[in-house]
Amino acid sequence: MTEVEAKKPQESLQDRLAQVVELLHRHKVVEDLTHRQEGQHHDRVENLVHRQNLVELQRKLEELHPADIAHILESLPLDDRLTVWQLVKSEDDGDILLEVSDAVRETLIADMDDHEIIAATKDLDADELADLAPELPRDVVHELMESLDAQQRERVRSALSYEEDQVGALMDFEMVTIREDVSLEVVLRYLRRLKELPGHTDKLFVVDYDGVLKGVLPIKRLLVNDPDKQVLEVMATDPVTFHPDEDGYDAAQAFERYDLISAPVVDKGGKLIGRLTIDEMVDLIREESESEVLNMAGLREEEDIFASVWKSVRNRWAWLATNLITAFVASRVIGLFEGSIEKLVALAALMPIVAGIGGNSGNQTITMIVRAIALDQVQPTSNSRNRLLRKELGVALVNGLAWGGVIGVVAFYLYGNWELGVVMTAAMTLNLLLAAMMGVLIPMTLHRFGRDPAMGSSVMITAMTDSGGFFIFLGLATIFLM
Amino acid sequence: MTEVEAKKPQESLQDRLAQVVELLHRHKVVEDLTHRQEGQHHDRVENLVHRQNLVELQRKLEELHPADIAHILESLPLDDRLTVWQLVKSEDDGDILLEVSDAVRETLIADMDDHEIIAATKDLDADELADLAPELPRDVVHELMESLDAQQRERVRSALSYEEDQVGALMDFEMVTIREDVSLEVVLRYLRRLKELPGHTDKLFVVDYDGVLKGVLPIKRLLVNDPDKQVLEVMATDPVTFHPDEDGYDAAQAFERYDLISAPVVDKGGKLIGRLTIDEMVDLIREESESEVLNMAGLREEEDIFASVWKSVRNRWAWLATNLITAFVASRVIGLFEGSIEKLVALAALMPIVAGIGGNSGNQTITMIVRAIALDQVQPTSNSRNRLLRKELGVALVNGLAWGGVIGVVAFYLYGNWELGVVMTAAMTLNLLLAAMMGVLIPMTLHRFGRDPAMGSSVMITAMTDSGGFFIFLGLATIFLM
Repeated sequence: MTEVEAKKPQESLQDRLAQVVELLHRHKVVEDLTHRQEGQHHDRVENLVHRQNLVELQRKLEELHPADIAHILESLPLDDRLTVWQLVKSEDDGDILLEVSDAVRETLIADMDDHEIIAATKDLDADELADLAPELPRDVVHELMESLDAQQRERVRSALSYEEDQVGALMDFEMVTIREDVSLEVVLRYLRRLKELPGHTDKLFVVDYDGVLKGVLPIKRLLVNDPDKQVLEVMATDPVTFHPDEDGYDAAQAFERYDLISAPVVDKGGKLIGRLTIDEMVDLIREESESEVLNMAGLREEEDIFASVWKSVRNRWAWLATNLITAFVASRVIGLFEGSIEKLVALAALMPIVAGIGGNSGNQTITMIVRAIALDQVQPTSNSRNRLLRKELGVALVNGLAWGGVIGVVAFYLYGNWELGVVMTAAMTLNLLLAAMMGVLIPMTLHRFGRDPAMGSSVMITAMTDSGGFFIFLGLATIFLM
Repeated sequence: MTEVEAKKPQESLQDRLAQVVELLHRHKVVEDLTHRQEGQHHDRVENLVHRQNLVELQRKLEELHPADIAHILESLPLDDRLTVWQLVKSEDDGDILLEVSDAVRETLIADMDDHEIIAATKDLDADELADLAPELPRDVVHELMESLDAQQRERVRSALSYEEDQVGALMDFEMVTIREDVSLEVVLRYLRRLKELPGHTDKLFVVDYDGVLKGVLPIKRLLVNDPDKQVLEVMATDPVTFHPDEDGYDAAQAFERYDLISAPVVDKGGKLIGRLTIDEMVDLIREESESEVLNMAGLREEEDIFASVWKSVRNRWAWLATNLITAFVASRVIGLFEGSIEKLVALAALMPIVAGIGGNSGNQTITMIVRAIALDQVQPTSNSRNRLLRKELGVALVNGLAWGGVIGVVAFYLYGNWELGVVMTAAMTLNLLLAAMMGVLIPMTLHRFGRDPAMGSSVMITAMTDSGGFFIFLGLATIFLM
């Protein structure tokens, strides 16, 4: 992690983005003019204006924090994005690549040759290099690895050996370690010799001669205690620690719960091998909630809003295809009752109401249960399942009778057929009960079998309430009205 | 913020929750037995077992961090929750109340008398008290305010004067301030006299005699620099600062972007009035993403999963009612074409496919645009709107022709009517184009008029694609097939 002191944002990020867009626009107008006059006399004055605009833009970019430049790159269409990317001073390239979203990073790396990539990444830390490595060309990674010393290389390899969201892939290696048998005065002198401390250093790690973690010395304690005291007297001996194969999301929850800034990562033998910091955890929390939103809407992954049509189609096709199949099934359910619809065409107009309300209500239930599972609030026991079922069925019954009653009366007024109204009310109630049952059972069953309960649960519940709603409504109508 | 050192979680949170549930269960079995034998001879042994179980449960709870107890309380049904709440040692009550969700906090406060509430909250800091105040009984708040000194009372009042998600309501008042004209050695000695530093102290705030912020001294710099240096030489003079009336979500994004741990809050005159810390920001980030998920599913707010049926009905009815109205409109659109459906009943079976795919595709688009707006990646200019429109319409055209083609062929095979197939393909394509257009325009228009683009956008887009889909399909069928 390169230390960059954040400048005070006198102007909002939106303002800065607007300024960059304005400069880009000026640049393009001039370019268009120059282009149009090509073949005719090539106007030197305009070329000069062109260059001045670029220089101004470059100066603007130099003032900005890499995270802000990353944000601006994400907000620009591809051509403008690459213009800006070429103007960014190359020492920031690595930091910016780390900050942008995966989809945007791909477009930036595609625009760089091997030489540029190596220049941008050679000063990164082992953990940062490991983050980028999967997206870099093979021979570039090879060359980068060659340039590292043995310890760094080993760290990159180790980080790459874990899944993206395991602690081992998220940790960094910038630990400040001390011994327990020295005085705080010695620790203070030692720190002064370091010249710089790694970001997010809120505690020092106390290890023995074998590198086994004995405790942590919070900086706060270092500062308020008598310098003559020994580390041993002041350190915390039972800190929250993590293992490299733990789930990063669990670690993020622990950070949130215990308000941690950094925490040691130890191997099975208790040896200190790295540390987690709150910034990585915040990214993870943000990512986790976002992937929940995206999954529910049927997007495979975060999308570059300026991605090509073709890329977007690929990101979205899987869920559309699933939806097509479930819609087809629902259509066949209706097909079963074409005879009834021919006799009473009002059924065709009323059936989407039954299906729609069921879907909406089912999605409410499933969203709540998925969240509770994600937060570990639901015990995977039949006792708590039954309790939730009872409650959700109760809510469905109330809503079904109330709203179903309203719509039943409306149906009676519209079509002057009170039996149709009663069937409507009954169908709504039954479909809401089905929605409630499935809203509890689908995520709990997925969870029980170790699947992600969020993934596709919205599509599944809608499929159930559509086909189920049509079947219940048309079935009741066929039995009682025909 | 009370300082609680987090204990190393030797067992997972799930395990601890399971243990508490087990102890509660044993307690209840005994209670049931005792109850059944009432009137007969009252068995003293069973009473003893009963008490032993409670003591064991209490001991278990005493080992736990307040955040863990909060989690356990959220995971328990109301009766068990109150049993545990009674057993928690009262000095933790305040911290636990701060940690639990709003819905659960309400159930806990309802179970406490005024005396208990005052005991639990009297040691809280001003900012924490302000967080709880809106949910406490009026006379309790009055009594608590009376017990505070003038400065604390002013702070509580100030915090209460801001909206829940403004910086002024999120900041705390635990700043360590120093002067710029002293040496680091003096600062170190000053800190030692404080005995304890507030949580999340990664920087000290440098103020002049009027309390105006001159800069910040990161603890890291304090530690690595020569103690003889002056604060002035070492401090950062342009730190990221916030104003109390700024939006908390913007502040959270700045914390994320610049990897901040704490940051000063200053008034218009530049006077230091409080500080923001990363833990509050993490809560906000979590909350923001969650409310996005909840809003999209049509839940008004976070729900206690063990809330009563009646409470849940109230939380969910508004969206269901909206959905009912839009479904009714869609139903009336179908009603317009009842004549056509009577002639060709296949239309009734096929129309939900057109509406369903449109809804799914529209939700994909709108989710992406809402996210991009939330992340400030979309400029509110007609230029960027047109660019996004062009792209989304392109995606819709590809999907419409591809999937519409597939379903057209299927319709032809099912009903042996090639004209029906062509109408199906055309209607799918047109409805996907409508979905794409609305998916871009709805959130951008809401945003333009200062509304939350997430709120209800899913319901709106579904309403459009349902009514629109039915109208397009049945309209085309009436023109070309009748």
